[in-house]
Amino acid sequence: MNKINVGLIGYGVVGSGVVKLLKQREEYLQNKFNAQFFIKTLADRSIHKKDTRGLGRTLLTKDYRKVLEDPEIDVVVELMGGLHPAKEIMIEALKRGKHVVTANKAVIAAAGKELFQLAKKHNAHLYFESCVGAGTPMINIITDGLAGNKFSALYGIINGTCNFILTAMTKNKMSFGQALAEAQKRGFAESNPTLDINGMDSTHKLAILISLAFGKFIHVKDIYTEGITQISHDDIEHAEKLNLTIKLLAIAKKVNRKIEARVHPTLISKDHPLASINNVYNALYLEARPMGDILLSGEGAGQMAAASGVLSDLIHLASNWKGDTSLLSNIYSEVKNLGIRPIGQVKTKYYLRFMASDKPGTLSKLAGVLGRYKIGINSVTQKAHSGKSTVPVIILTDDAPERLFRLALQKIDQLSIVKSKPVAIRMENLN
Amino acid sequence: MNKINVGLIGYGVVGSGVVKLLKQREEYLQNKFNAQFFIKTLADRSIHKKDTRGLGRTLLTKDYRKVLEDPEIDVVVELMGGLHPAKEIMIEALKRGKHVVTANKAVIAAAGKELFQLAKKHNAHLYFESCVGAGTPMINIITDGLAGNKFSALYGIINGTCNFILTAMTKNKMSFGQALAEAQKRGFAESNPTLDINGMDSTHKLAILISLAFGKFIHVKDIYTEGITQISHDDIEHAEKLNLTIKLLAIAKKVNRKIEARVHPTLISKDHPLASINNVYNALYLEARPMGDILLSGEGAGQMAAASGVLSDLIHLASNWKGDTSLLSNIYSEVKNLGIRPIGQVKTKYYLRFMASDKPGTLSKLAGVLGRYKIGINSVTQKAHSGKSTVPVIILTDDAPERLFRLALQKIDQLSIVKSKPVAIRMENLN
Repeated sequence: MNKINVGLIGYGVVGSGVVKLLKQREEYLQNKFNAQFFIKTLADRSIHKKDTRGLGRTLLTKDYRKVLEDPEIDVVVELMGGLHPAKEIMIEALKRGKHVVTANKAVIAAAGKELFQLAKKHNAHLYFESCVGAGTPMINIITDGLAGNKFSALYGIINGTCNFILTAMTKNKMSFGQALAEAQKRGFAESNPTLDINGMDSTHKLAILISLAFGKFIHVKDIYTEGITQISHDDIEHAEKLNLTIKLLAIAKKVNRKIEARVHPTLISKDHPLASINNVYNALYLEARPMGDILLSGEGAGQMAAASGVLSDLIHLASNWKGDTSLLSNIYSEVKNLGIRPIGQVKTKYYLRFMASDKPGTLSKLAGVLGRYKIGINSVTQKAHSGKSTVPVIILTDDAPERLFRLALQKIDQLSIVKSKPVAIRMENLN
Repeated sequence: MNKINVGLIGYGVVGSGVVKLLKQREEYLQNKFNAQFFIKTLADRSIHKKDTRGLGRTLLTKDYRKVLEDPEIDVVVELMGGLHPAKEIMIEALKRGKHVVTANKAVIAAAGKELFQLAKKHNAHLYFESCVGAGTPMINIITDGLAGNKFSALYGIINGTCNFILTAMTKNKMSFGQALAEAQKRGFAESNPTLDINGMDSTHKLAILISLAFGKFIHVKDIYTEGITQISHDDIEHAEKLNLTIKLLAIAKKVNRKIEARVHPTLISKDHPLASINNVYNALYLEARPMGDILLSGEGAGQMAAASGVLSDLIHLASNWKGDTSLLSNIYSEVKNLGIRPIGQVKTKYYLRFMASDKPGTLSKLAGVLGRYKIGINSVTQKAHSGKSTVPVIILTDDAPERLFRLALQKIDQLSIVKSKPVAIRMENLN
């Protein structure tokens, strides 16, 4: 039996889920995985306000140093969140040769490289399954399930709040505000949902996925990020008619030793499995070689889903208890000479919508502008001669570099026949 | 560097894919996983007919005993297929303390328990990712990605040939025969596709998934199996109108310490992600606690997809090279006192279709028969007064035990108002 002393830092929603789950599964973990986890110390700065029943033999403290300084603690489970002091706590734990399990995506996205080097140097493990998709094993499938594969692209629906809002707007015709309020009422969205709806939460997670799938530590500022606040019912309904649906996708591709990385609302075919990933479900779609395309989906948030990820990390730790940590620390094996493709050079298809005068010659003027920037037109939908003076025009373009498209968009906006600010949404042709 | 001597038995499509992949990834495997795989011996009974270029330092032989009897061979990769002598080869390899990697679902389904006990006894590993879904990590997600979770139900699309045929019949209006011929032309179906289309291939795979997810070794004869040969365009089209689609599902559920296991064509909502899994893609949908519902999908057949699964097995072996095999052999931890629910006691909803006289009183007679067997009716569709003397009737029932439904079906078949043999297809209400 491997007896493992755990120091838990942060006793909020996820932390209390982990304690509950370890208790529920105690016998099962001993029988199946030969592992006995004992929470030796629980540190939380508001520990006196928390319900700590059932933690009788555990030292309860406000001071996380009690965890770091205890030589008998084998693994630090960091669930306090936030960049500081969580990062410093992980650094010190690793320096002291303690293993670390964390759900802190901000720290892994910002300091993954440093932490992994430290883990390797000090012969410690660093596990972080819950950082992306909660317990849906998105980290594990890249590093372990598809071990030996190389990846050329990944597409993630990795923010449950945004996916819930877009689903509610699409299926239940809710307004953005109603959908957000509903998400908050059901406990899916934070009271301050800014990081969710502006896309930055997805960006942090994408940075982690890129480091694992492509072997490149990418700074979050190098990931183009656009949230979902601009999505309107008009666009959802036009998309529907084109057999498309709008998802907030985190996208990364590796082409010619350059990585492009972006988070933005994206139109995809309703026939693609990602289009069926609704509500708070998250999904990761991977283009792997030689395996081909892989889809993994599950709930990406919630107390027990996150606790499940932490538990699987603890089990992996126990399963490698006497193993060679150097292999596992190779999870991040940095690939040399990989560059970043700036967003201006990224090519995508676009959906473009605006109101235009219902006059002859409108389309030829639009086609002229796009043609000048070498942007091909895939289709145009214009409800002509409706009796109204302006009509909606929907253009789907061929692949075009973002920089040229932006220039064309400015020119279109300036045309006198264009009567509303053009809306542009990127499209992805998934296999 | 872990130098691992491999003995490969069976050099067909998958075997040559593995050799190719090991060569392609040689440097990558050394750098990332600290592993060097050397194919010391390659045994195939038709080795003289095979293209063995690039295997210069490998001993080529017709005799698989050369692999088993070589004390320097660490791992036997069994890719010959078939029950015998593959099973005996694996047994002897494990008895000699050699690790085994196999893609042989028939052997694992039939003799998994025996092989796992042997592996544990002799401190050897047994890996078999490619047995289900080729390299789509369906084994790994149950045993590893979701470690610590318990499972209450699983739904698999785990035969690419059947899924290809059903997709071609649904999307391209092909007949069953045309779709099968197309699958064979594209190399997805065997020249003798019996085991695919009669469902038995899915049954073997389901037995393996059940042993992993529920800890119960189930005999394939205890899995109710029905293939796809009876599916007609009429049913596909009626289903479409009801927003349903037909998939060959492998289903297992654990309720009250009894397992129900079945493979049959199943109607599911078109809104469910499994309904979007088309062509040769496979998928596994798991109900896990505490994680919730998980979907994993990828190509379930093909040379390199299968080779990818074998490579990931070899990497897992290398990563645990100095580790504790006892933990990993616990992959099958048998749960005591789990029974099998016979198909007669299994409850499902049914779709029932037949031609009936277009006369008043028809529906009340049908409802009378179903009522006598306590089978609730969810909906009835009858195109009445079409001018023809018979009309199609579609009934969707509530949950009913198979035994009672079969009795009711006999009675309905005998009604004078029923003018065609009733077709019954089970339905599943997935979340």
